[in-house]
Amino acid sequence: MKDGTLCIALALALGLTAGQTLADDLAERARSLFEAVPQSPPVIDGNDITEEKVALGKMLFFEPRLSSSHLISCNTCHNVGMGGHDYLQTSIGHGWQKGPRNSPTVFNAVFNAAQFWDGRAADLAEQAKGPVQAGVEMNSTPERVVATLNSMPDYVERFREVFPGQSDSVTFDNMATAIEAFEATLITPGASFDRYLQGDEDALDDSEKKGLALFIDKGCAACHGGTNLGGQGYYPFGLVKKPGADILPVGDKGRFEVTRTASDEYVFRAAPLRNIALTAPYFHSGGVWSLEAAVAVMGTSQLGTELSEEDVSFIVAFLKTLTGEVPDIQYPLLPPSTDTTPKPESMEPQS
Amino acid sequence: MKDGTLCIALALALGLTAGQTLADDLAERARSLFEAVPQSPPVIDGNDITEEKVALGKMLFFEPRLSSSHLISCNTCHNVGMGGHDYLQTSIGHGWQKGPRNSPTVFNAVFNAAQFWDGRAADLAEQAKGPVQAGVEMNSTPERVVATLNSMPDYVERFREVFPGQSDSVTFDNMATAIEAFEATLITPGASFDRYLQGDEDALDDSEKKGLALFIDKGCAACHGGTNLGGQGYYPFGLVKKPGADILPVGDKGRFEVTRTASDEYVFRAAPLRNIALTAPYFHSGGVWSLEAAVAVMGTSQLGTELSEEDVSFIVAFLKTLTGEVPDIQYPLLPPSTDTTPKPESMEPQS
Repeated sequence: MKDGTLCIALALALGLTAGQTLADDLAERARSLFEAVPQSPPVIDGNDITEEKVALGKMLFFEPRLSSSHLISCNTCHNVGMGGHDYLQTSIGHGWQKGPRNSPTVFNAVFNAAQFWDGRAADLAEQAKGPVQAGVEMNSTPERVVATLNSMPDYVERFREVFPGQSDSVTFDNMATAIEAFEATLITPGASFDRYLQGDEDALDDSEKKGLALFIDKGCAACHGGTNLGGQGYYPFGLVKKPGADILPVGDKGRFEVTRTASDEYVFRAAPLRNIALTAPYFHSGGVWSLEAAVAVMGTSQLGTELSEEDVSFIVAFLKTLTGEVPDIQYPLLPPSTDTTPKPESMEPQS
Repeated sequence: MKDGTLCIALALALGLTAGQTLADDLAERARSLFEAVPQSPPVIDGNDITEEKVALGKMLFFEPRLSSSHLISCNTCHNVGMGGHDYLQTSIGHGWQKGPRNSPTVFNAVFNAAQFWDGRAADLAEQAKGPVQAGVEMNSTPERVVATLNSMPDYVERFREVFPGQSDSVTFDNMATAIEAFEATLITPGASFDRYLQGDEDALDDSEKKGLALFIDKGCAACHGGTNLGGQGYYPFGLVKKPGADILPVGDKGRFEVTRTASDEYVFRAAPLRNIALTAPYFHSGGVWSLEAAVAVMGTSQLGTELSEEDVSFIVAFLKTLTGEVPDIQYPLLPPSTDTTPKPESMEPQS
């Protein structure tokens, strides 16, 4: 309070209006809670981001032959033309199986503290190995992946160049490392909100600023902070009041499956909110298609408050300022299959 | 013969060696049978290729929401990173159903006289409407497609700009027209063989030239001529000797299904051979993975001749010179789904 009074006195002395002071105050508060998406990929411990590695990682990201059917690539469920995900409630995988959870966006995923809705992968490289092997997703094995990549000379040469000095550079781990390097480049700077954080007071209009203030004051920012406005901590979904089974299916106990700790039942990683306007449907269940409805659910389930329709619309206006600039992505040319490439597996759905 | 004698006499008079004359002769014969892929898209009757139309067509080509599942786009089976097709025997479609025929490459398809293995679509626009509606492929309807596109303001605006002066520009026909415009740009000039046709004698080495001569002399060029070395006429598969059911399945009578004419039983459009090294497996059945084996099958089934292993390898060497330069394709940004976008249909496999 003392600082506030001093600040206003200072502002008056400088000839500033109270409105400007309040605005500066909001920007200051925002800067203390959130960070802008940087213009270039962050440094990743143990994974230098080189041009050649990113190029290889991009090929692998778009490579359907990493799946046993030769149909499904990373880009199938994390479509770089569609907000980095698939606009499905839960993804379709091998044999047209329905996946258990909503596909999270790959954009800015590098800024999350851990990957997956339950944080079971420490980083993007570990994450990349999951869907490739999951029977419900790409249904492959590390051995099959290595045999596939080794069957195409262009891949072998690129792995050698990107991972020099290794007796055998075509490995499942190196595949994941290269994919991580590419995914680290999938960041979306330049959102209106980032320009606001960087000092451009006019980057948000009045409704958006009201939404930002509500987002902080109502308590959303407590879980949805940092660069990604989320993706950092774990919280029980339904902290105050459990939503219905259409939104919080009883069978999916979230982080409990990882830690087997009773207090982790129905605990999930707070969803990162960057580009949230592009990533419907919402929640791990994909049970809600409208962003307004998702915000209202958060009010009742996490904050124990019935947000007014007006407040919801301000918050949504603010959330829409989190849409950034998607990087330009040239479609990669993948090498042709050869006589030794493992053939696509039976197209029959798995039982 | 007379012309040949004259030609040699003339060559001697000009101080040329006999080798050069023979080489020129081969190049001349090639030029009379084949045409190079042009550097820019051909003119299409009734469909001006404008930049805006190509941009819209590219979005639609990559748009999985044209399928009822929201999973399958044109690019799923005609993957621009994989030779314009999917490296599958036959494609996987809605509900993980197995398609009836091998997916043809979209590259240079604009130079085919008609589309599909049986030529049932007159052009690429007509073709584009097929898979969108096929229950075994994208499983949608014109009504659903129009509702989907109309639900996204960015699409509505683009259709209006690309098809001005129409009271309702978001139509199924206009979707197909825009896709055709984009596909017309998917041409691959610059193959070694094209440089040879354009006068660069050194663009083919001796083995490749031997292969070209065999390709002409053995009779392959009779069906596989023109810009695409095929894609122009219809011929019975098994003209001399029917291959086994693994290559020519008994249940698929080819063009007979289109014309209901007895003489069209097992008649197919001669496969276009551009980029053939990138489009295994081969034939409408996708029954053969090796290009050598495919050439040998053609010898016995169409020409009634058992090609020697050496001849096959020369012909394959020539066929590999048909690989051109794939155009640069920037991944398009697709607009977000809205509240009115028809939801993806049930993920259960269709019975």
